[in-house]
Order: sequence, then structure tokens, then C-alpha cells
Amino acid sequence: MTQFGILEDSIIELAQKAAIEALTDSSTIESPIDHLIVGTQNPEEFTGQGHLSTLLADYVGVVPAGATRVETGPSSGSSAFESAVALVGAGMADLVLVIGVEKMSQVARNTASKILSRMLSYENEILYGATPTALAALMTRRYMHDFGLTRDELSLLPVKAHRNGAKNPLAQFQKEVSIEQVNNSPIIADPLRLYDCCATSDGAAAAVIASNKAVREYGFSDSVIKVLGIGHGTDYLAVQHRTSLTSLNATRVKKAFSMAGVEPNKVDVCELHDAFSILELLNMEDLGFVEKGQAIKSVKNGITEVSGDIPVNPSGGLKARGHPTGGTGVAQIRDIVLQLRGAAPKDLQVADPQVGLTHNIGGFGNNICVGIFSI
Amino acid sequence: MTQFGILEDSIIELAQKAAIEALTDSSTIESPIDHLIVGTQNPEEFTGQGHLSTLLADYVGVVPAGATRVETGPSSGSSAFESAVALVGAGMADLVLVIGVEKMSQVARNTASKILSRMLSYENEILYGATPTALAALMTRRYMHDFGLTRDELSLLPVKAHRNGAKNPLAQFQKEVSIEQVNNSPIIADPLRLYDCCATSDGAAAAVIASNKAVREYGFSDSVIKVLGIGHGTDYLAVQHRTSLTSLNATRVKKAFSMAGVEPNKVDVCELHDAFSILELLNMEDLGFVEKGQAIKSVKNGITEVSGDIPVNPSGGLKARGHPTGGTGVAQIRDIVLQLRGAAPKDLQVADPQVGLTHNIGGFGNNICVGIFSI
Repeated sequence: MTQFGILEDSIIELAQKAAIEALTDSSTIESPIDHLIVGTQNPEEFTGQGHLSTLLADYVGVVPAGATRVETGPSSGSSAFESAVALVGAGMADLVLVIGVEKMSQVARNTASKILSRMLSYENEILYGATPTALAALMTRRYMHDFGLTRDELSLLPVKAHRNGAKNPLAQFQKEVSIEQVNNSPIIADPLRLYDCCATSDGAAAAVIASNKAVREYGFSDSVIKVLGIGHGTDYLAVQHRTSLTSLNATRVKKAFSMAGVEPNKVDVCELHDAFSILELLNMEDLGFVEKGQAIKSVKNGITEVSGDIPVNPSGGLKARGHPTGGTGVAQIRDIVLQLRGAAPKDLQVADPQVGLTHNIGGFGNNICVGIFSI
Repeated sequence: MTQFGILEDSIIELAQKAAIEALTDSSTIESPIDHLIVGTQNPEEFTGQGHLSTLLADYVGVVPAGATRVETGPSSGSSAFESAVALVGAGMADLVLVIGVEKMSQVARNTASKILSRMLSYENEILYGATPTALAALMTRRYMHDFGLTRDELSLLPVKAHRNGAKNPLAQFQKEVSIEQVNNSPIIADPLRLYDCCATSDGAAAAVIASNKAVREYGFSDSVIKVLGIGHGTDYLAVQHRTSLTSLNATRVKKAFSMAGVEPNKVDVCELHDAFSILELLNMEDLGFVEKGQAIKSVKNGITEVSGDIPVNPSGGLKARGHPTGGTGVAQIRDIVLQLRGAAPKDLQVADPQVGLTHNIGGFGNNICVGIFSI
């Protein structure tokens, strides 16, 4: 994984850096890679550079591997990972390189917002000026109404994100913030304030997915992390067409748990898609970690801290680690891999985790990928 | 498959029409689809509409299925199909809907050319004004030099394409052309003339991929066509970095034959990527149907006609059927499925084919997907 933040590197350089690190870390840099999958959301619009599958196959040196670009909005990285797991699971590949990448800072910030808003429903949302932030604000207000969540409570989420991010050397924001700072930060879409919203970001992460045969052949079993389950679900495009404003049904499909054969209470560490503060609470509830409306209690009781029973986003999450959209899913997986290896940054390592989970949202809450991993 | 051509329908309507036809034809319109994969090249740039995976999951009624968009340039449709086969092969899905779609006519023709040219190498090709047509011209000239191909011989390819297209009710160009018409058509990039180059096009095609379990469960075994093999390979981005100007190495990886366990001489009918006349010859040679430099002999001897030993592009190919880029790969597969079912249009049906092949190029000759199918 590269540094996340506003960076000088081009999208190609970011992808190359992450790829070379993944190939080096997995000792596959001289091995025949069967397939490259690139997860990226809107490189054409953010950078003018498209056709990254074909280009990167050449630029990271994996020709004649098959090369595919996968896009599902901000869950593009996880979807790329899912496609890689499928190729390996089907016996169509033994070694697959996955790169998740986005370079968002080449365009002006309001242009970036416009590009991101295009994932909403045109006739039901964009036409009326809706943005992802506005929809998140709407869901936050409803959650406050239904479950009594207060502003001070909501602020605990960015405070925790930044506390973890401050210890993550690759995070975009490596500084702590206080409840007061969050509460007094500018309103972006009432009730959401600046620190409730992830920033635009540049960055890439990569992973090598290997078949059991390749694991045996290449002898890197010490560092191997198992993919137990991958799930991917959708919901209706427009938020107004969904059955709930305080729950994401695409998460509740629970395919990943079914494939993995594990229950939510077996998860020791997770990286959840907290692009807006409210989402971390919804995700915890939709994944079955806590009862509906109860997530904030776990946050207040310290259960989601690195030292807690359900550590959520030890990396700092999308809020503090950063959210280069197509890069996020693979970064989450990379961070869970490090946790399961016991190789997370100092003070962010969860005690002896056996099972880790990633949860990545594409669209606004309606194209969700979940991964479950174990040592 | 929809009509191919310059159409009134939006990209969403095209995708919907193809999807509904595929779901109806396979009797899965009321079955739970596990995943939707959309193959499309540059919808954001051609139409302003992106995020088609999430959007189409809703608009074709498959929520809460996972939904993924796959892009590999003009082979996006075949790559989407590959991803679907992998999901089914890995046991991660039982029913997958694949849609290949492109709507190219919303932008001016020279804008479309610029969008397509971005798949080339910027520093080695685009910077010097290269376009896909210019590179195809260069390869044609070299092939003429090395193998003595004449202009009259080359013209046999579009003549055959149009002869077949004239009988295909969904083809963009349903009219025959003569050698003289080809020879006297405007020069686009010397020696390529208008009829050597496919046109921009709108259109969509769709397919339902089912696991063996789903085939048994849904009882549609009569119409089922088997996927024997899928291969996907790349070559260096810039044409000047490749080892040959008269061969596409990405085809020569031959993964599909290896997976299918069949030899090229077992193929009874094929749809090859003839975006430019010369490519049909290169593809026949690279796939191993004929010896290097000998493809034109087969064309002259009628071997590639519908009634010949190796019928190539009975649909009319990219040249006459049309080439809505992301739609082409799935359209090729759809046309081979019809051939294998004995349900091709009158006068285009090959006699009793057992094995069919599709060959689809992304990038300029460097991101190639091959599929092998049987009854």
C-alpha cells in the first residue's frame, strides 16, 4: 500500500508502487502472474487516463497475463479482489495480482464531488442537487430521530478514527482530533460536519491471490492469509426506493458469512466503510456485530477500540487513513492481512486476531462487498 | 441482442432490452440472479452515464444480486463473460447475468475516435497522432510486404463480411458490397479504406451463465451451451514494443484451447475480431486455423464462408454486424450460441457445428479474450 493523501505520484506510479510491494512481499515478483485485476472507479474522469488493465499489465511487467479492470464505484477495489478470488477458485488462475487505485486530487475538489455524485440516481437524486454527503446527512438525521443518537456521540467516531490514524504511518490524517474540534468544524450537510466526512485522496494498494497449488509450489505458506468468504450485494439505486434509511440492505445479504461458514461473533478485527460517521454505526448493526440502534453503546464503551472486543478500523478507516475510492477495498484487505499476521503498526495491532472482516461500499450504500479472512 | 447500429435508445435502454431477452430466452426471468456483470468500455465518456453495475442491477430487476462492471477496452464484453464464468466455476454464483453494451453515437464521430485512441500508449503512439486505424494500416502494410497480400485480396474480407451481414437482421450494415466498391471507397489510413474499418455503433447483448446445479434445477438443458474454455492474454501496450507486426501474441497464449482441451481443427464456427480487415487474417493464423501467411488462401478458396470448412464471422463480424465496443464480445458469444443451437438466421446457419469459438480484442491488439463453446 502506498501512502494515502494528496500525492505527487500519477495514477500509474501509485499502481506500480503498490504492485511491486505486493509482488515483493509475496515473493512472486519473478513468478508467472496469470491475471492482473485493477479496481478503479473513475480514472478517466479524475486523471484523463483510462484502459488501466492493458496499460498496467505492461507497466508492472506481467504480460502476457490476462488483465481486467473492475469498477463498482468506491467498492471497486473489493470487487476486483472478488473477481480475483473467483478466477483462482474456478481454477482459471493460480496467481492473480489485484491493484486498487484512485488518483482524485488532479481535479478541483468540487469537480471531484461532481464526479462522485454521478453514482447517484439521476432522476431521483442528482436532478435535485443531492450528493453522497447530503444523503448521508439524511440517514444520520433519521438515525438520530429513531435511536436518540446525539451530536456528541456521533463525534466519537471521527475522534476514534483520527486516534488510530495518528499511529498509522500510511494514513492521510495522522493527527488526533477532539470532540470539540469535530463539533465546531464547518457544517457540510447538516448534521454532518467536516470531520464526519472522508476527504478526497490519492493512493493504491495491491495483493497477490494464490491458489492452494501455488501456495504449495511457491512455499510462502508462513505469510499466507486465507480467504474464507466473499459476499457482494446491491440495493435499489435511489435511497428513497429502499426499505430503510437506517440500514443498508446490501450488507444484510450476508453472503460472505454464509460462504465463510462463520458467525459475526467470530470476527476479531474489521475494517468498515466509514466514508461518513453514521456508516460505521449502520455497518456494525447490518453485519450483526450489535443489535439495531445499539452500535453507539459499543463505541462509548470502548468495544470498537484496538483493545476492545470488536476492534473497528484500527487503520483509521476511510476517515483518517483516507479514501482514494478504488484503492480503499484493497487497502482494507491489506490492513486486515497485516492484523492477522501480527504485523500491524505499533499500538494498532489487535491482540492475536484469528478472523478479520472487510466491508466496502460502492454507489451510495448500494453495491457492497464483504470479505472474511483468517490465519 | 439488440439491433446494432446508430440507435435512438439510451445505453440503459439497450442494456435493459438485451438483459430482458436473455432472461426470457433462458427462462430465468423470475429466478434469483446471483450476480450481474456489465461489460462496457467508456460509457462515462460516450454517454455521461457511469456506475452501470449498480444502476442496471436496479433497472433490470436483479437487486440484491452482486453487480460488477468490467472493462478491458473493446473486449469488455468477453471479459465480463470471463468474470461470470469464474464466479460460477468457483461456486460463488449459480446464475450470472452478463450484459455487454456500448452507446457510441451520442458523441460526434471524431470525438468517438479520440475516446477510442486513448487505449493506445500515450508516449509512444497518441503523442504522435496515432489512432487504432493508423496502427492497423501499419500492420496491413507490413503483412502485404511480408506475405504478398494484394489490395484485391484484402477486399475479399469486407465483401464476405457484408455478404453475411446482409442476411443478419440485427446487423448494422445489411447490404452487400463489391470488391470495386471496397477498392474505390475513401482512404482512411493508407492502405486501409472505408470498408476495411468497422464503424462506431450502438448496441447490447446479454447472456445468462448457469452452474451445472442451476442447469439441473431449472431444467433448461435443451438449450444449454457449454463453456469449454476461456482464455485471456495481453501484450505490450505500444505496438512498437511487440515482437511482431503481423501477429498478435496475446492471441497466441492459447489459454482457451488449453482449458477446453480441444485443438484448433475441432472448431466448426467462429466469430473473430475483424475491426479492420487485416485482423481477420492475423486472428485465423494466431489461433492456429491456418499457417502463417496462408489465411488469405482460405478466404479465396471459400473455406471461411458459411458453407466452408472454417466458417469465420457468419454474423457479418464487427465490420457488418457492427462494433459497439463493450457489446461486441457478448454479441459474438450470443451468435455462436445460436449457431450451436442450430438457430442462426436463415442462410447463415453453419451445418451441424459442435464447437464454436469467439475471439475479441481489447486495446489495440493487446488484451484478447477467447471463448470456446460446445453443444
